[in-house]
Amino acid sequence: MNSNVRRFRTDAHIEFHEGDAPLLQGRGVTGLISWVDPDQLPVEIYYGPSERTEAPFTSPAGISGFVTGDQGLGHVVLTAPDIQKSRFFYQDVLGFRLSDIIHMQFGPDFGFDMEFFHCNPRHHTLALIPVPVPVPAPKRMHHFMLQVNTLDEVGFALERAEAANIPITATLGRHTNDHMVSFYASTPSGFEVEFGHGARTVDDANWRIARHDKPSSWGHKRSTAHQ
Amino acid sequence: MNSNVRRFRTDAHIEFHEGDAPLLQGRGVTGLISWVDPDQLPVEIYYGPSERTEAPFTSPAGISGFVTGDQGLGHVVLTAPDIQKSRFFYQDVLGFRLSDIIHMQFGPDFGFDMEFFHCNPRHHTLALIPVPVPVPAPKRMHHFMLQVNTLDEVGFALERAEAANIPITATLGRHTNDHMVSFYASTPSGFEVEFGHGARTVDDANWRIARHDKPSSWGHKRSTAHQ
Amino acid sequence: MNSNVRRFRTDAHIEFHEGDAPLLQGRGVTGLISWVDPDQLPVEIYYGPSERTEAPFTSPAGISGFVTGDQGLGHVVLTAPDIQKSRFFYQDVLGFRLSDIIHMQFGPDFGFDMEFFHCNPRHHTLALIPVPVPVPAPKRMHHFMLQVNTLDEVGFALERAEAANIPITATLGRHTNDHMVSFYASTPSGFEVEFGHGARTVDDANWRIARHDKPSSWGHKRSTAHQ
Amino acid sequence: MNSNVRRFRTDAHIEFHEGDAPLLQGRGVTGLISWVDPDQLPVEIYYGPSERTEAPFTSPAGISGFVTGDQGLGHVVLTAPDIQKSRFFYQDVLGFRLSDIIHMQFGPDFGFDMEFFHCNPRHHTLALIPVPVPVPAPKRMHHFMLQVNTLDEVGFALERAEAANIPITATLGRHTNDHMVSFYASTPSGFEVEFGHGARTVDDANWRIARHDKPSSWGHKRSTAHQ
Amino acid sequence: MNSNVRRFRTDAHIEFHEGDAPLLQGRGVTGLISWVDPDQLPVEIYYGPSERTEAPFTSPAGISGFVTGDQGLGHVVLTAPDIQKSRFFYQDVLGFRLSDIIHMQFGPDFGFDMEFFHCNPRHHTLALIPVPVPVPAPKRMHHFMLQVNTLDEVGFALERAEAANIPITATLGRHTNDHMVSFYASTPSGFEVEFGHGARTVDDANWRIARHDKPSSWGHKRSTAHQ
Amino acid sequence: MNSNVRRFRTDAHIEFHEGDAPLLQGRGVTGLISWVDPDQLPVEIYYGPSERTEAPFTSPAGISGFVTGDQGLGHVVLTAPDIQKSRFFYQDVLGFRLSDIIHMQFGPDFGFDMEFFHCNPRHHTLALIPVPVPVPAPKRMHHFMLQVNTLDEVGFALERAEAANIPITATLGRHTNDHMVSFYASTPSGFEVEFGHGARTVDDANWRIARHDKPSSWGHKRSTAHQ
Amino acid sequence: MNSNVRRFRTDAHIEFHEGDAPLLQGRGVTGLISWVDPDQLPVEIYYGPSERTEAPFTSPAGISGFVTGDQGLGHVVLTAPDIQKSRFFYQDVLGFRLSDIIHMQFGPDFGFDMEFFHCNPRHHTLALIPVPVPVPAPKRMHHFMLQVNTLDEVGFALERAEAANIPITATLGRHTNDHMVSFYASTPSGFEVEFGHGARTVDDANWRIARHDKPSSWGHKRSTAHQ
Amino acid sequence: MNSNVRRFRTDAHIEFHEGDAPLLQGRGVTGLISWVDPDQLPVEIYYGPSERTEAPFTSPAGISGFVTGDQGLGHVVLTAPDIQKSRFFYQDVLGFRLSDIIHMQFGPDFGFDMEFFHCNPRHHTLALIPVPVPVPAPKRMHHFMLQVNTLDEVGFALERAEAANIPITATLGRHTNDHMVSFYASTPSGFEVEFGHGARTVDDANWRIARHDKPSSWGHKRSTAHQ
Repeated sequence: MNSNVRRFRTDAHIEFHEGDAPLLQGRGVTGLISWVDPDQLPVEIYYGPSERTEAPFTSPAGISGFVTGDQGLGHVVLTAPDIQKSRFFYQDVLGFRLSDIIHMQFGPDFGFDMEFFHCNPRHHTLALIPVPVPVPAPKRMHHFMLQVNTLDEVGFALERAEAANIPITATLGRHTNDHMVSFYASTPSGFEVEFGHGARTVDDANWRIARHDKPSSWGHKRSTAHQ
Repeated sequence: MNSNVRRFRTDAHIEFHEGDAPLLQGRGVTGLISWVDPDQLPVEIYYGPSERTEAPFTSPAGISGFVTGDQGLGHVVLTAPDIQKSRFFYQDVLGFRLSDIIHMQFGPDFGFDMEFFHCNPRHHTLALIPVPVPVPAPKRMHHFMLQVNTLDEVGFALERAEAANIPITATLGRHTNDHMVSFYASTPSGFEVEFGHGARTVDDANWRIARHDKPSSWGHKRSTAHQ
Repeated sequence: MNSNVRRFRTDAHIEFHEGDAPLLQGRGVTGLISWVDPDQLPVEIYYGPSERTEAPFTSPAGISGFVTGDQGLGHVVLTAPDIQKSRFFYQDVLGFRLSDIIHMQFGPDFGFDMEFFHCNPRHHTLALIPVPVPVPAPKRMHHFMLQVNTLDEVGFALERAEAANIPITATLGRHTNDHMVSFYASTPSGFEVEFGHGARTVDDANWRIARHDKPSSWGHKRSTAHQ
Repeated sequence: MNSNVRRFRTDAHIEFHEGDAPLLQGRGVTGLISWVDPDQLPVEIYYGPSERTEAPFTSPAGISGFVTGDQGLGHVVLTAPDIQKSRFFYQDVLGFRLSDIIHMQFGPDFGFDMEFFHCNPRHHTLALIPVPVPVPAPKRMHHFMLQVNTLDEVGFALERAEAANIPITATLGRHTNDHMVSFYASTPSGFEVEFGHGARTVDDANWRIARHDKPSSWGHKRSTAHQ
Repeated sequence: MNSNVRRFRTDAHIEFHEGDAPLLQGRGVTGLISWVDPDQLPVEIYYGPSERTEAPFTSPAGISGFVTGDQGLGHVVLTAPDIQKSRFFYQDVLGFRLSDIIHMQFGPDFGFDMEFFHCNPRHHTLALIPVPVPVPAPKRMHHFMLQVNTLDEVGFALERAEAANIPITATLGRHTNDHMVSFYASTPSGFEVEFGHGARTVDDANWRIARHDKPSSWGHKRSTAHQ
Repeated sequence: MNSNVRRFRTDAHIEFHEGDAPLLQGRGVTGLISWVDPDQLPVEIYYGPSERTEAPFTSPAGISGFVTGDQGLGHVVLTAPDIQKSRFFYQDVLGFRLSDIIHMQFGPDFGFDMEFFHCNPRHHTLALIPVPVPVPAPKRMHHFMLQVNTLDEVGFALERAEAANIPITATLGRHTNDHMVSFYASTPSGFEVEFGHGARTVDDANWRIARHDKPSSWGHKRSTAHQ
Repeated sequence: MNSNVRRFRTDAHIEFHEGDAPLLQGRGVTGLISWVDPDQLPVEIYYGPSERTEAPFTSPAGISGFVTGDQGLGHVVLTAPDIQKSRFFYQDVLGFRLSDIIHMQFGPDFGFDMEFFHCNPRHHTLALIPVPVPVPAPKRMHHFMLQVNTLDEVGFALERAEAANIPITATLGRHTNDHMVSFYASTPSGFEVEFGHGARTVDDANWRIARHDKPSSWGHKRSTAHQ
Repeated sequence: MNSNVRRFRTDAHIEFHEGDAPLLQGRGVTGLISWVDPDQLPVEIYYGPSERTEAPFTSPAGISGFVTGDQGLGHVVLTAPDIQKSRFFYQDVLGFRLSDIIHMQFGPDFGFDMEFFHCNPRHHTLALIPVPVPVPAPKRMHHFMLQVNTLDEVGFALERAEAANIPITATLGRHTNDHMVSFYASTPSGFEVEFGHGARTVDDANWRIARHDKPSSWGHKRSTAHQ
C-alpha cells in the first residue's frame, strides 16, 4: 500500500482521500478512496460492496441481467489529450494492462491510435482517445458501455431507443477488438452509451497485444449528425 | 373429430360451442370450443395462441419465468363428488391419463383416494377429490398450481405472501407423487394457490402407475385454521 | 404415387411432366418432375442430386457454408391472391404443414394473415401472402431467403451490399416466428433476398401452431422507398 | 385381456385368480392376479405398487441402493424339466423374450442349454435350466439375484458373508452373457443367491440373440462342496 | 513452525500442548496440538486422521452423506465480546480469511457486524458475534452447522425434529452470504444446530469480500421464544 | 417367412437349404440357411452366433479391434452383369436398400453406374458393378473391405503390406460416398481387399439417396498394373 | 544438481555412477545414473527413453495397455529394517512424498506401520515395510505391482495364473489406501506380483495424509501358505 | 531486456537491429528486431501484429483455416553444421526448449541426431539437422511446415500438387514425434514444404523428453529422386 501511496503522491502528483462513514454508508460499501485523475475526472475505488441477495434483480424492461461481476460495471472511453500522462497514471500507477490498439484514420491527413486497457477479464474497462472529441458540447468521456446477456436484449433496447426518439449514433455492428455486437446512442449528458453483447474476454496468461486498422468488423455506421 | 363430438354429445351428455370471432379475438387464439363439465365448471380448449416474442416477459417480482410451454399453465385440483362421471369425462372423453393415486386418510374412519391425471409431460394437470371440500365457502376448485424455475423464486414468493398477510395454508414441503417443492396460500376467491418448483415430469413410454399413502414426503404442514 | 398423380390431375387440375435425360443431366439429378403451380410459377421436384465431396465448397466471400442439407436451399415467400387454391395445392396435394400465422396490419383498415408452411425441419420453406405485393414491378415472389452459420456472416454480407450500393430494404432484425436474424435487400430481378442466421427449426413431434401480431421482434425497419 | 385370459385357460391350462382386498392391502398394491406355473411354483403379477417417498431407503449394511425400478427386483433361475411347456408358458403366454443361450457342458457326456429371458431392460429376469438341479435338497429355484450400484458393495457383502460363515458357492467372477460381476452364496432355504454389479441391459431395438459356451468370462469358481 | 509458535506464545499469549500417545490413539489421528482460545473455548488441531474405507458409512436416518472432506466438519458461530482479540487470534495467528460481513440490525438502536471467516473452500468455518448472545443459558457457541447433499435430507431432518418435539428455532430459509438452505433447532446443550444444504464455496483466487444487510434472502423465521 | 420363401422360390427361382447340425456346429451358430445367388455365388444367412467374452480379442498385429457388431463383417463389391436380376434379388427379395450411385467413367466412351446397398448402419454391405471386371483372372468379387478404429491402424497395415511385397492396388484415399479412408491391396485369391477407417454410417430415418461422379475425393491412385 | 550430489555423497554416504555409452544404448535411454540404496538394492534413474510409436503395443494376452506414462511402471514394496535411514534417503535425498500410513497388526503383540510414498500421480511408487518379511526365502522386495485398464483384464490374468498353477497369494480385493482392486501371485524369483486396476491418484495440491488400520477394504484373503 | 541484449552481443556475438517506421508499416506490426543467425539466416521477432477481423479469411482452395494463433505460423527445419553454436543461440539465448530427438540412420555407417525445439504449444517450431543436406542445390532450410484442420484438407492439397506436377518428395505418413499426418513436396525455391494435420501439442508442465529411432510411424516414403 505504501508504495502505491508514494506513486500516487510523488510520481503522479495526485492526492487521494479515504471515504468517511457517511460516504461509505451512502455508497453502501466497506471502504473507498477517491481522487481526481490527470484529466480532472473524479474517480473512486471501493471494496466490500453491498450484495442484495434478498432482493432479486428486476428489470422493468425485461433484461435478464447485465454482464458485471468480476468484469465490473462496463467500460468507459475517455479523451486524454496528454496521453503520456494518462497512460502513466492508469497503466503504471493503477496497474491497468494494454489490450490492443486501434488506429483510427479519418481521411488521408488525420489519424490517431486509441489505446484499450483492462484490469479484469473484460477486454477493456478503459480506453483512451489521445485527442479532444468534437461532440456538440466537448466532454471528457466519449461513451460508457453496458453489456447484456443476449443479442435480443440489444435488439429490444434499440427498439426502445428508437421508439423514444433517442438519437442512434451508431447502428448495430461488431467491434474488431473486443468482438462486441452493439449500437451507440446519445445520452442526455452529451456523451454516448454503447449497449452490447457477446464480447470476448481477456486471459492474461494467453493474451497477446495486437493492432487493428478499423474499429468495427461490420456495421456501427455513424449517423451523419454524430460522426 | 366426429367421434369426439359423438362422445361429447351422446356418451357424456355434454354440448360444446365453437368460439365466435369476438371471443377468439378476446382470447387471442386461432380457435376454441367451450362447454360445462359434469360439475358445472365452464371449460375451454383452444389452439393457435398468440406468441408475443416482440414483448419480452417482465415480472415486477423478478421471477425469471414460469414453467409452462408444453406443460401448459399449471394444474387444478377439483372436487368431483360423482367421481365415476368425472373420471369418464376427463379420462375417456378428453383423453387424460392416470398418473397415480394418493390415499388420504383423516383419522381412523375417514379416507379417500385422490386421482391424478396428466395430458402432457406435467405430472398432473388435473386431480380429482371424490368428496366435497369443507373450505369456509365450498368451492369446486380446491387449488390451482403455478411452477417457477428455482427454489429461491418459491422462497421469495413466500416472503411476499407473508409480508402481505396472505394466509399460508401449508408450509414449504415436497409432494410424494410429483416431487414438487411448494407452499400453499389462500386466494381472495376462496380456493388456494400452490406455488412450487422442481416437479418431475411424466414420460408415457416409461411411466408406471403407483399409489401413495401420504401426500407429502416432508413439510406442507397445514395451519390449524385451514386444515 | 398413383394417389398423388390423381390429386395433381383430378383434384388440383395440374399436369406434371417427368424430366427427360438431357434435363436430368443438366440438373445433375437422378430424377425430377415439373409443373406450373396455381399462380403460374414453374416448379420442379427432384431426387438423387449430385454430391461433390471431391470439390470442397469455396466461397469467394469467405462464407463458411450455407444452412442447407435436410433443410433444403432456403425459403420463398410467394403472393397467392387465391389463397384457398394455393393452400389446397401446397398443403393438401404436396403435403406441406402449417407452421404458424402472422397477422400483418397496415394502418387501421388494411390487414391480412400470412401463412407459413414447412416440409422439413426448416421453420418455413414456403410462405403465402394472400394479396398482391405492390413492389415497383409486381412479382409473384416477394423474396427468397438464404441462411448462413454465423451472425458475422450476415454482418459482412450487409457490409458488402452497402458497399455495392444495393438497396437495403429492411435493416438487421429478428423475426417473431422463425427467430431468424437477418436483413433484406433488393435483387436485380425486382424481388428481395433475405440473408439471415440463427433460425429455430420445427420438430413435428412437438410443434404447436401459434399466431403472431407482428413479423419482427426487433429491427427489420423497412426503408421508406420499399415499405 | 380376453385373449390373454384365453391363452392362460385354454392354451396353457392354467387358472388365475384376482387378488381380493385383504391381499391387495397386504401386498400394498392396487391390483394383482396369481396362479401356479407349469412347475407348480406360485406366481403373482401386480400393478400400482406403493411408493414410499416419505420414507428414505436406509440399509443397515450401508448399501446405497439396489438396481430395481424398471428392471424389477432382480432375476430368478428356475429348473424346468419340461422345457417345452415352460418356454411356451413364459415366452408365448406371458411374453418374455429370449436374450441368449448358454451351453453348459459337464464332462464329455453331459450338457444342456440354459435359456435366458427378459421382460424389461434387465438382461434376464428369468432363466430356465432344462434338467433337475442336484442341490442337497432338490429345489425348483436354483438361485435369485440382487444387483447393487458398485463393485465395493459386492465386495463388502462378500466380506459379511464370509464373516458370518455363509457358504460361498462361487467366487467373484463375471458372467459371459449379462456381464454381471458377482459371487454366489447359499441361502438357508437351500437355493443360492447371486449378489452382483455392473450387468449390461437389453435394448430390444438393437438386441441380437447369441450363444455362449461358458457361463463366466473369469472367476465364479465353484467350491467343491457346491459344484 | 517456529514463527507460529512465537505468534501463539508471544503475540497471542496462548500456550499450546502437543497430544500424547493415549490422546492420539483416542482421537485416531497421527498428531495434534491443543490450547484454550481467547474466549476460553478449548481447541484442537490434528493431522493424519483415520480413514475407514473398510467400513462404509451407514446412517440410521438414511442420510446419503455429510458434506465434509476438504470442507471440514461444518462451521461454528461463536460469541466474541472482545472482537479485536478474537479476530487477531483467528485471522492473524491461525490464518483464517475474511469471507464477508453481515450487518445485523435489531430495531433502530441496536445492531452489530457479524464477521465470517474461511480456512478452506467452505464459505465459513467460523463466524464471530461481537456481543454476548442472550440465549436462556448464555453459551459461547451460538450454533454449529452440518451440511447434507440434498434438500430432501434437510426436509426429512426437519420432519424428524418436529416429530421429536425438538424446538425449531428458525424455519427453512436461505442465507444471504453462503446461500445455505437450512433450518435451525435447539440442542440439549443449549446452543443451536443449523442443518442445511446447497451452500456455495469460496475460491480464494476469485473471491471478493462483500457486505450484507440481512442474514437471509428468504425464510429463517425465528420462533418468538428463540428470537 | 412363408412370403419370403415364396419370393425365393417363385419370384427369384432360387432354392435355399437349412443348415443341419454338423454345419451349425462347424459355423458356431444357432441356425442358418444357404443358397446360390443369381451370379452363382454361394451365400449363407445365420442367427445366434457364438460370443467369446471369455476369450479377449488379441491381434498379433496390434489392431485394437475391427468395426463389426451391428455393421456386420465389412462389405463386398460384386460384379453383376445381369444387374436387373441381381438388384431384384438383393433389394426386393433380401431387403437391402439403395444408399447411392457412383457413375464410373473410363474415357469418353465407356462408363457405368455402380450401385451401393445397405442392410444395417454400414453405408454399404454390398455394391454391384454391372459389367465384368477385367482383373487378370476374372472374379465375381471385385474386393471385400475390413474397417479398423484408427487411421494409424490403416497406416500400419499399409506398412506391413509394403514390407511383405503385397501389391498395393490403390494408394491411401477417401471415398466420395462412404467417406472411408483406405487403401487397396491384392489378395492371393485374385480379388482385392480394401482396408479402411472413418466411414460414415446410414440412418434410414434421415438418409437421402445421392449420386457421385467420382469414386474418391482424394487419393486412391491405382497402380498402372491394376487399374 | 550439485546440491543433490552433495546430499548423495555427504549426507547419505552413497556414491552414484553415470551410465556410459554401451549402458545407455542397452537401456535405450538418453542418460542415466545408478547407485546402491541403503538396503543394498541397485537403483537407476534415467531420462529420455525411447518411444516406439512406429511399433504398436501388442500383448499376446490381449491386454489393452498398462497404466504407465506419467505414473511410471508401477510400484515396489521394499523391506527397510532401518526405516530411518531409508526414509531419509527416499524422502529427503530423492524427494518422494509421504502418501499415507497403514498400521498392520498381526495378533495382539505384533504390529508395525507401513509407509507409502509417491513421486508422481501414482498413489505410491514405493512402500516401506520396517521389518524383514518372512517369505520362504527372505527378499528385500516384498512385491511389485502392475496396473491395467479394466477389471476384466485383472480377472483374465487371474484365470491365466490359476490355469498355470501359479500360487495366488491374495484373492481379489480392494486396498484401503490406493483403492486398487487386485490380486497377488508368487513370482519365480520368490517375491510377489500385485496385478490390479482402478487405483486413485494423488494430486499434491489437495492431498491430505491419512492413516488406515487395515490394508484392504474387502478381499485380499491370503492363502494359509503365504500369509 | 538488458540481459538478453548482453547475451546477443557478448555471448552469441550477434548484433540485432530495431525495425524503423517504414519496416513496421510494411510488416503491419507494432515493433520488431532483426538479426542474422549463426548460419547466416536473417531472422525477425515482432509483437503487436495486425488483426484483420474486418476481413474474413478466404482461401481460393477451400481451406477452412491454418493452425496458427498461439502456435505460430508453422515450423522450419534448418541445417546447422555447427550444432553447438546453433543450439546455444536458439536454446540459451532465445529460450527455445528441447522437445525430443530423432536418431536418423542411413545405412550402417552414417547417422546423426535431429533435435526438435519448441517455444509455444506447437511440438516444434524449429528443428536442427547437424549436417549439410545434399538437396540438389544445398539450402540452409530443409523444409517449412503448414498445418490445416482436417485430414481432407491434406488430401485435397496432395491432389492439387499432383495435378500441378509438383514433385511429391514424401508420401502421406505420420511422424513418430509430433504425430503429424502429412506429405512433403518440393517448392520452387529448392527446399521442401510439409503439409500436415493432427499434430499433438506440448504442455511444458507435463512434457518429458524422449528419443526416437525413426522419423515416421508409417508412410512418408521418399521418392527415389529426393531421398
